[in-house]
Amino acid sequence: MRFPFKTVALVGKYNSKEIGSSLLRLAEHLKKKGLRVIIASQTAERIGIEGFETANLAEIAELADLAVVFGGDGTMLSIARNLVSYDVSVVGVNQGRLGFLTDVSLDTMIETIDEMLMGEFVVEDRFLLDTVIKRGGEVLHEAKAFNDVVVAKGAAGRLIELEVFIDGQFVYSQRSDGLVIASPTGSTAYALSAGGPILHPTLEAIALVPICPHTLSNRPIAVNSHSHVEVLVIYADDCCANLDGQHRLDLQVGDRVQVSGSAETFRLLHPKGHSYYDMLRQKLHWGEKL
Amino acid sequence: MRFPFKTVALVGKYNSKEIGSSLLRLAEHLKKKGLRVIIASQTAERIGIEGFETANLAEIAELADLAVVFGGDGTMLSIARNLVSYDVSVVGVNQGRLGFLTDVSLDTMIETIDEMLMGEFVVEDRFLLDTVIKRGGEVLHEAKAFNDVVVAKGAAGRLIELEVFIDGQFVYSQRSDGLVIASPTGSTAYALSAGGPILHPTLEAIALVPICPHTLSNRPIAVNSHSHVEVLVIYADDCCANLDGQHRLDLQVGDRVQVSGSAETFRLLHPKGHSYYDMLRQKLHWGEKL
Amino acid sequence: MRFPFKTVALVGKYNSKEIGSSLLRLAEHLKKKGLRVIIASQTAERIGIEGFETANLAEIAELADLAVVFGGDGTMLSIARNLVSYDVSVVGVNQGRLGFLTDVSLDTMIETIDEMLMGEFVVEDRFLLDTVIKRGGEVLHEAKAFNDVVVAKGAAGRLIELEVFIDGQFVYSQRSDGLVIASPTGSTAYALSAGGPILHPTLEAIALVPICPHTLSNRPIAVNSHSHVEVLVIYADDCCANLDGQHRLDLQVGDRVQVSGSAETFRLLHPKGHSYYDMLRQKLHWGEKL
Amino acid sequence: MRFPFKTVALVGKYNSKEIGSSLLRLAEHLKKKGLRVIIASQTAERIGIEGFETANLAEIAELADLAVVFGGDGTMLSIARNLVSYDVSVVGVNQGRLGFLTDVSLDTMIETIDEMLMGEFVVEDRFLLDTVIKRGGEVLHEAKAFNDVVVAKGAAGRLIELEVFIDGQFVYSQRSDGLVIASPTGSTAYALSAGGPILHPTLEAIALVPICPHTLSNRPIAVNSHSHVEVLVIYADDCCANLDGQHRLDLQVGDRVQVSGSAETFRLLHPKGHSYYDMLRQKLHWGEKL
Repeated sequence: MRFPFKTVALVGKYNSKEIGSSLLRLAEHLKKKGLRVIIASQTAERIGIEGFETANLAEIAELADLAVVFGGDGTMLSIARNLVSYDVSVVGVNQGRLGFLTDVSLDTMIETIDEMLMGEFVVEDRFLLDTVIKRGGEVLHEAKAFNDVVVAKGAAGRLIELEVFIDGQFVYSQRSDGLVIASPTGSTAYALSAGGPILHPTLEAIALVPICPHTLSNRPIAVNSHSHVEVLVIYADDCCANLDGQHRLDLQVGDRVQVSGSAETFRLLHPKGHSYYDMLRQKLHWGEKL
Repeated sequence: MRFPFKTVALVGKYNSKEIGSSLLRLAEHLKKKGLRVIIASQTAERIGIEGFETANLAEIAELADLAVVFGGDGTMLSIARNLVSYDVSVVGVNQGRLGFLTDVSLDTMIETIDEMLMGEFVVEDRFLLDTVIKRGGEVLHEAKAFNDVVVAKGAAGRLIELEVFIDGQFVYSQRSDGLVIASPTGSTAYALSAGGPILHPTLEAIALVPICPHTLSNRPIAVNSHSHVEVLVIYADDCCANLDGQHRLDLQVGDRVQVSGSAETFRLLHPKGHSYYDMLRQKLHWGEKL
Repeated sequence: MRFPFKTVALVGKYNSKEIGSSLLRLAEHLKKKGLRVIIASQTAERIGIEGFETANLAEIAELADLAVVFGGDGTMLSIARNLVSYDVSVVGVNQGRLGFLTDVSLDTMIETIDEMLMGEFVVEDRFLLDTVIKRGGEVLHEAKAFNDVVVAKGAAGRLIELEVFIDGQFVYSQRSDGLVIASPTGSTAYALSAGGPILHPTLEAIALVPICPHTLSNRPIAVNSHSHVEVLVIYADDCCANLDGQHRLDLQVGDRVQVSGSAETFRLLHPKGHSYYDMLRQKLHWGEKL
Repeated sequence: MRFPFKTVALVGKYNSKEIGSSLLRLAEHLKKKGLRVIIASQTAERIGIEGFETANLAEIAELADLAVVFGGDGTMLSIARNLVSYDVSVVGVNQGRLGFLTDVSLDTMIETIDEMLMGEFVVEDRFLLDTVIKRGGEVLHEAKAFNDVVVAKGAAGRLIELEVFIDGQFVYSQRSDGLVIASPTGSTAYALSAGGPILHPTLEAIALVPICPHTLSNRPIAVNSHSHVEVLVIYADDCCANLDGQHRLDLQVGDRVQVSGSAETFRLLHPKGHSYYDMLRQKLHWGEKL
């Protein structure tokens, strides 16, 4: 981590104007403190900010010590994807609704960022999912996912048939609507709706969660993130792979989707005093102290 | 591991006579090969074997390099509890029904043990759950569990109220029939019936699985096995802690059950070619190759 | 239904003093309107009300046209049990927390009861579960349940084995923590925590919901309320039947618990404009209009 | 029911040749008994049967007293759709794998049909789901479903937003992959994979089962089949309605899918001694007698 943070980048949700005044307020506050402030070009243009250095995400990845992202968890995922191999710490400011990744509120943003600049924060390194999609011997696609890789039926088919292998060992064949392969970060997203377990961020684990499996005993399983998970499409009218719900690729029978925990991580900062369990409890409406 | 195995102990299911001839057959086979064979005193007495050295479990723990357990997973748990701090590898011979921990069948027992003596086996180290139960400042009970620690209502009450803390952080309060705290080994036992995820044995994780929780969003969570999990009994007419379904302790309001992954592990041997996924697939009737 | 309501009984939660002033306010309001007001003896004594006619529940069952119950759903169940074969309509006033059966709030109590007296209400007839428990040829116990009959393990055992028959046909054997047999009224109580479906009050259906079943494909099933459900205890260290979570009876191996929908119903009144779905949505935090 | 059965139609799975010899064997057996035997034109052509009267499904609907369907449950659904408003009883002969609707095996086919001709059978009337899809004021599509009507995301979107109304009352809004509206017949099909309850065929009930709902408390609910269920598409990139997994219709935001139990039923015959519970137990691998 490049600390103390000297160069701070501010990036807003794609095409959102509402974040403008908050972002500007923070930009001016940081500038006054003598920090180098960079605003993402697209954000600056969209909200009409002038008088600040701007840069695209590729440049920000090189230049910034800290990136402040304004938006929800979806925004965080699409922006972080550009920063992941670089030494940038990231913090998320939500737009009113607490996110798992965007847990600073607008109300307390200035104080929280000030504290972070003084080194008061909780660091969380979240690993990514290295994903390779192969057709025959050829690599069709290679990418990283934060939350999940979903192999699922498309619109046409009712169910698909998959075979799953882990470290070369056959696990099961499955008729289902699909399979979610989720990191701990993704375990509170789509995988949770599909009935998967919550995995604490410090676990080196990947959850395999079937979506509406035909075999009723087909339960979620958490495997080691150092494992190599391979999903082979056995039968499908219409099938696709979906990364973080943001990137979709059509699959054919015989295609292989390979997923394993990446050595690269994404460094997320939380305000001091942050508790993962407090966040879960708030988001999932779990019981408070009695 | 003390290898090559020179001293082999044979231990049978408590009070079962049926295992007698198989156990005797293995004992004679091993003796012929020049190994020192010890039969658990209680087993020898129950099945009426003579002409072999006998010892109690405490002595076996000191003397044996390898212990062969005849019985089901329940037998394995109760016997292994005596061997856990010692350098004994353990293998389980089931009585017809494949177990998660007892995966050698009677039919192939001789060949499998012969292969193991030659070093052909798959080693699996399974961690235990260090459990401390406190009333006020005082420690009421201290023990290790292989599968799970369950804090649950007794016969009288309909539900209990618990508060859960992890590493001192408040997680949630819960009204439920109880909470299962399971190791990866226990994740395929009671926790699975309660809706918990399967945790691969290599994961350093503990699953917290609520039993019939009143709050419908109360989902299973897997946390780091290095965490300290604490369950505080807030309200209960009748409440108990249950270790591996074998040891029960009545709890009162205010009692604390503390669980964390133990540094000590239990060394389980499987036949060569063993696959955890094959076993899951067979036990849970998951789909074979299409 | 005996309408217009001329005799109104007021009954409070057992041993609760807090409801005193509200109950008194309603009693005086109704008296002023010229109605005959009867207060349950135990309630009158507990809260120290004087100057009103009092009667025990058996007398109220004979005398009252309408009974107003102050308390939660548990209170409603225990009081309604005494009124069920009589021609008394019942309405529930909750103590702050909306109940499924007690949906009038203290704030609007006077207006709501006034409207009910003028015939503005929604009637819901809820059927009961006729329950007979047999040992050998002998009837051990006979009773009615509103919510559910639960056959479950006691404190000692880890699981029990049951066989279930419907109309004399064998359904399944089951190893589990127990089985919930729920009416539509009970489908939103314990059965829901055990993973059962919600059954609309107009359905002539009974839900059979296994509690932590060993066989993972063992899903909830809703059968016709005119069916005769029989649960036979096959194996148990410790087993009991529990009616509405309020009456418990110890069971032995070989005991039979027989349950079927009763011809008798319980007539619940709701405020006009009442919607079952609104209540579900509020209680279960389902999504409001978007 | 037109009994005794004088005219028997034989219909085979679409495009399957394998059923040829069995179907021919039954055809000849029935002819020898003096019955009028009609073979579906498409079936006769596909398997090359000659010397029998042939007719299309529309003609069979008018002429036959009994239709014997060779194939699986999917075949039964697509054939029965043509027979539903007519007075034809239907029996299904499976091709090796027991179906919920096709429960006569090839081995016992001749004896079973002979018994049925003598009046020995179990009758089951299964109701259908009347389905109307509206865009604005206009009816886009009108059809009947046996199993289920599914409103679900297509390939592109990650989730859709729906509002559900029953008899004009708002039930909930839901973000999910979709919603299954299932008859008792469909309750053991897709709805079961999505976590829904099994509904006994005699229940006048429809199950609403959310698919991967975002709100974790969103549980399946069974409502009265005389209710009018309406699903309004609030938000979707890509959304469709799917009837029995066989007919798909693309939906737009604002479209309404209306479903209610039909007065028309489908008359299914089972062999004498048939038990619905035996079938469930076999199909779902529930526990046999202990």
